[in-house]
Amino acid sequence: MLEKLKKEVYEANMELQAKGMVIYTWGNVSGIDREKNLVVIKPSGVDYDTMKPEDMVVVDFDGNVVEGHYKPSSDTATHLVLYKKYPQIGGVVHTHSTWAVAFAQAGMPITAYGTTHADYFYGDIPCTRELTEKEINEAYELNTGNVIVETIGDNDPMAIPGILVKNHGPFAWGKTPAGSVYNTVVLDKVAEMAYKTMMINPDVNRVSQYLLDKHYFRKHGANAYYGQGSEDH
Amino acid sequence: MLEKLKKEVYEANMELQAKGMVIYTWGNVSGIDREKNLVVIKPSGVDYDTMKPEDMVVVDFDGNVVEGHYKPSSDTATHLVLYKKYPQIGGVVHTHSTWAVAFAQAGMPITAYGTTHADYFYGDIPCTRELTEKEINEAYELNTGNVIVETIGDNDPMAIPGILVKNHGPFAWGKTPAGSVYNTVVLDKVAEMAYKTMMINPDVNRVSQYLLDKHYFRKHGANAYYGQGSEDH
Amino acid sequence: MLEKLKKEVYEANMELQAKGMVIYTWGNVSGIDREKNLVVIKPSGVDYDTMKPEDMVVVDFDGNVVEGHYKPSSDTATHLVLYKKYPQIGGVVHTHSTWAVAFAQAGMPITAYGTTHADYFYGDIPCTRELTEKEINEAYELNTGNVIVETIGDNDPMAIPGILVKNHGPFAWGKTPAGSVYNTVVLDKVAEMAYKTMMINPDVNRVSQYLLDKHYFRKHGANAYYGQGSEDH
Amino acid sequence: MLEKLKKEVYEANMELQAKGMVIYTWGNVSGIDREKNLVVIKPSGVDYDTMKPEDMVVVDFDGNVVEGHYKPSSDTATHLVLYKKYPQIGGVVHTHSTWAVAFAQAGMPITAYGTTHADYFYGDIPCTRELTEKEINEAYELNTGNVIVETIGDNDPMAIPGILVKNHGPFAWGKTPAGSVYNTVVLDKVAEMAYKTMMINPDVNRVSQYLLDKHYFRKHGANAYYGQGSEDH
Repeated sequence: MLEKLKKEVYEANMELQAKGMVIYTWGNVSGIDREKNLVVIKPSGVDYDTMKPEDMVVVDFDGNVVEGHYKPSSDTATHLVLYKKYPQIGGVVHTHSTWAVAFAQAGMPITAYGTTHADYFYGDIPCTRELTEKEINEAYELNTGNVIVETIGDNDPMAIPGILVKNHGPFAWGKTPAGSVYNTVVLDKVAEMAYKTMMINPDVNRVSQYLLDKHYFRKHGANAYYGQGSEDH
Repeated sequence: MLEKLKKEVYEANMELQAKGMVIYTWGNVSGIDREKNLVVIKPSGVDYDTMKPEDMVVVDFDGNVVEGHYKPSSDTATHLVLYKKYPQIGGVVHTHSTWAVAFAQAGMPITAYGTTHADYFYGDIPCTRELTEKEINEAYELNTGNVIVETIGDNDPMAIPGILVKNHGPFAWGKTPAGSVYNTVVLDKVAEMAYKTMMINPDVNRVSQYLLDKHYFRKHGANAYYGQGSEDH
Repeated sequence: MLEKLKKEVYEANMELQAKGMVIYTWGNVSGIDREKNLVVIKPSGVDYDTMKPEDMVVVDFDGNVVEGHYKPSSDTATHLVLYKKYPQIGGVVHTHSTWAVAFAQAGMPITAYGTTHADYFYGDIPCTRELTEKEINEAYELNTGNVIVETIGDNDPMAIPGILVKNHGPFAWGKTPAGSVYNTVVLDKVAEMAYKTMMINPDVNRVSQYLLDKHYFRKHGANAYYGQGSEDH
Repeated sequence: MLEKLKKEVYEANMELQAKGMVIYTWGNVSGIDREKNLVVIKPSGVDYDTMKPEDMVVVDFDGNVVEGHYKPSSDTATHLVLYKKYPQIGGVVHTHSTWAVAFAQAGMPITAYGTTHADYFYGDIPCTRELTEKEINEAYELNTGNVIVETIGDNDPMAIPGILVKNHGPFAWGKTPAGSVYNTVVLDKVAEMAYKTMMINPDVNRVSQYLLDKHYFRKHGANAYYGQGSEDH
């Protein structure tokens, strides 16, 4: 079942490795079939080098495995919270990419310092609060999803399609599994740029609101004029 | 039309990717036919991996598409300002290369700290002022070109063949499209060297004027003696 | 003799190079046959590119060469101390990987700042004290092993399967030669993350004990639920 | 003439590129025939990708081209000073490798912080004083050699087989052209390690003299026991 989505999710996971976002079995990408409310996700702890499309696991909104010979990613519950809350999202990704993790461990947002950031993220990329001991012990992965939702609230999740979970790492999302990977690669790149910017100028200021507006809306929304058509991921 | 120039521009764009200056569809290179005042430029938002020479877009000095099945780069207006002002320029490039962006976001020039810099840039690589809200809203790409021209003024653009646009990233140029890419690769490398120099010695001073002179004129101008002939890019 | 173990040790050494942990002849991995108390180790100063499984050297617990046409690694005595003290260990690795060496030279532990660290190391990765002049001159490699044992003491070496030797570099270990390499790759990666975290937030605090617990025990021990079975290395 | 040496020098130059020490035409390696006092060196400004062994240039001790269809490296005079002063040297290399240049631009030595450094460099890697305007204008490349000699003096150049020329970059040498490249790769790596060490611990101290002694003499001299025989480069 869901052969096409499985292939998309598989390829998106492989792209994580190709883009240097993960080593070993780290990271996971999922995608959703919105008609059936079924989520396809990477199996837990399986090597990218031997993984195949048919190894992807199908789960329902309660996290039950509907199809698959492997256990799903241990982060499945986090993905499901995001899909349930935000119907705009078609793919979710989690990595331990280095620059993004540095900000997550530092407990700091990735401030929008320039147009590279503004091209994809309409404002600072936030960092969640810490989970409490109770939240961690009772339902860690579920509450990771909940604290992301608490941070984004009812804002459009596609305006800033990624977040840092404190002391953990980035989650990102997109219209598709491939789009979510695109966004996490950009998130890590703007984290790298922000890091280097802060090092050479500790007093640096955020990009102006009007340059942020200009670049974001050059690529997104009704008046976009970058690219050959839709550039949304 | 302009098949040879299209091939040169195409290859220069591909070189951006090969040299690690761009990811995804980021960055663009153009070249000019000075006899016809026609500019060949990368199409907007097209993947490097599938791009072909015939996808390059030909525009006139007013930015009208003269030939091409794609929209030209959204930064075309910036390139045109540079070609119109500086007849010495045969190629223009824009990237979001990481080290250069860090300085652009920090709003700081790349100070000439050594001979690697002096071999190609005869002085600090400047950073423009911020564009005003009005400049951004009225004609962003045109005014990006204008602020570059405002910064360089009537100095020889080939003496320092690159610049940082504040909160944005580097533009560079050269005698040819390939030369402009060469210069942007060197610009990013000297930005990296400057960054690391500043980190280990925050009190470091600019290279002496006579060492700057020596290295620059060892490679450029009538008394150059580096290489087997012309080394100008 | 020990053909299977030699192949494992050879492949683990080659993996050091493939993962960017070593250049030239740097680094070494060993493995042990616990029934025979024989250790198989990389020969000293042999190039990875020409090395073959049959070049691995077999030594006994006193460091005598039992088989092999090369001299064993000059660090053999250090490996032996670890095998003798800790029966849980099946493989040992030493590298000069860059991020780990930076902490070793700085004389600082790698503090646990997040879940990437917690997934594999149940607490800070310690840095040994300096060896005394006497210890260095009398039996340098042996005393390197001894100072590691002094630092770990009777704690479970598998809970934090790596250490920094002051002014030197990392040693790591695992259940197998391949597992020891896995652990040293992760050690270097978490060192990189810790470095970047400290740079952007010099006042950063250690990860909470309950998040450390959660991630470590999600992957290790009786209640582990990450992966498809054992994830221990 | 000197076909074997030309091949060695060619391969050593290509190794510079393979090891990431150079981009474009940057860098140069030479080798010497001590019986004939002839030096073989890379031609100036020739691309690595098209260079062939027969493109190497043969010069005598006065810098006259004895054989070759290209001009020799513009740094030839510097190499010759080193060969004339130090008969131990069989190969010389100059690069603009990034980490070494950062220290050269900062005007700081690479302090010996650990065993990676001590394995190859018996003490801090010095940085020369600045050349004066007169020295630069009268005979830049010759005086670059002279200031290196002034810094090393009558110490054994093989004990610390590399140096930083202020505001310029590293020169290194070895028993052979390949050995000089080996030493420059290690020099850049220990520069990287020193940089990162200084960043995480600005108050870090030099490695102890006895650990420096131990590691250096484990690899060099009459009592060396690392490797399968001579490890000297």
